[in-house]
Amino acid sequence: MEIIQRQVSLSSRKRGFHLITGEVIGAVPELKNFHTGLLNVFIKHTSASLTINENADPTVRADFETHFNKSVPEDDEHYLHTAEGPDDMTSHIKSSILGCSINIPVTDGELNLGTWQGIYLCEHRNHGGSRKIVITLSGIKT
Amino acid sequence: MEIIQRQVSLSSRKRGFHLITGEVIGAVPELKNFHTGLLNVFIKHTSASLTINENADPTVRADFETHFNKSVPEDDEHYLHTAEGPDDMTSHIKSSILGCSINIPVTDGELNLGTWQGIYLCEHRNHGGSRKIVITLSGIKT
Amino acid sequence: MEIIQRQVSLSSRKRGFHLITGEVIGAVPELKNFHTGLLNVFIKHTSASLTINENADPTVRADFETHFNKSVPEDDEHYLHTAEGPDDMTSHIKSSILGCSINIPVTDGELNLGTWQGIYLCEHRNHGGSRKIVITLSGIKT
Repeated sequence: MEIIQRQVSLSSRKRGFHLITGEVIGAVPELKNFHTGLLNVFIKHTSASLTINENADPTVRADFETHFNKSVPEDDEHYLHTAEGPDDMTSHIKSSILGCSINIPVTDGELNLGTWQGIYLCEHRNHGGSRKIVITLSGIKT
Repeated sequence: MEIIQRQVSLSSRKRGFHLITGEVIGAVPELKNFHTGLLNVFIKHTSASLTINENADPTVRADFETHFNKSVPEDDEHYLHTAEGPDDMTSHIKSSILGCSINIPVTDGELNLGTWQGIYLCEHRNHGGSRKIVITLSGIKT
Repeated sequence: MEIIQRQVSLSSRKRGFHLITGEVIGAVPELKNFHTGLLNVFIKHTSASLTINENADPTVRADFETHFNKSVPEDDEHYLHTAEGPDDMTSHIKSSILGCSINIPVTDGELNLGTWQGIYLCEHRNHGGSRKIVITLSGIKT
């Protein structure tokens, strides 16, 4: 088995849910040489997260933003950690609900995603700026 | 280290939470030969998910269904993505909250789960049909 | 590639969210010899969980406890699985929302966490006692 790893700075996105499948795949051209393996993507932040979901209809990503704003409301008066504004603590909570890393099987030189699956960057802050991810690819080569 | 991978079609389950530990283990008989490793299970869908929880009392799985139906309500009027019915967008959201892949340590030829841990298929759609999973087992053999 | 694995009993913590980054790193001194890899931490329980979040301000961990107590309320009359008390079923649900395992890239002998990231033990029971984790470290050595 072999392993490669690369740190990537994603371009800054506005608050919401964004497809980054192409950016992830583009960062590891060695992927095409892996016969069987796993790809891990890890985001080095506590107010943004990664998930896998529907890759076609933009309203899915809009509905994600709507849902999480309702289920983790910014006007909750119980939060203590609000020094950076109302989107501070809520972003931490959303980040842990969705998670900071994903693992995808690699098969015959490609990510073995389902037809409708894409990788989302979930930007929970109003002004999160550029986000750093670490991509780790391990497996056996063809 | 060695790696093996297998795609499996799970039999169709009704909406709800279902134990599939036996089906997963049965799909990789090579497991018994791995001394130390990791097992990844990945579901290739965006309206079903995988998690690990209590493996004994069926009321736990029933309570999971109750909780997620309340916390991600189908009668929410704010969803835009509802072309396939009221269980469409809610299934996407539940899927990302619970996650599409799990990683379990492998020790002495077995999954190193806690006494009360089992693998759940979380079927969020009313008629989800058969679901495809990819099992990736890596580690060192005995 | 090489792989090592170790089971660790964490000291008992009270209900809430607790930083355990130091305890995890201390359990695998071999980490410093790994040039590139992945660390998996898996908790062998269904009423406690693991996540990664802010490692500095204790009010973040307090707000996590507040949020999850509100979003998974113990006074919900719909739960069937309550034999062990009102914190029984709610702990199972919180555990699956947050997840029982985390994966962190390893780079140049260290966990490649972001500046503000730490590993949390999320203790959902009132009296959870000691918790067992399995740490699996794989990769290439320097």
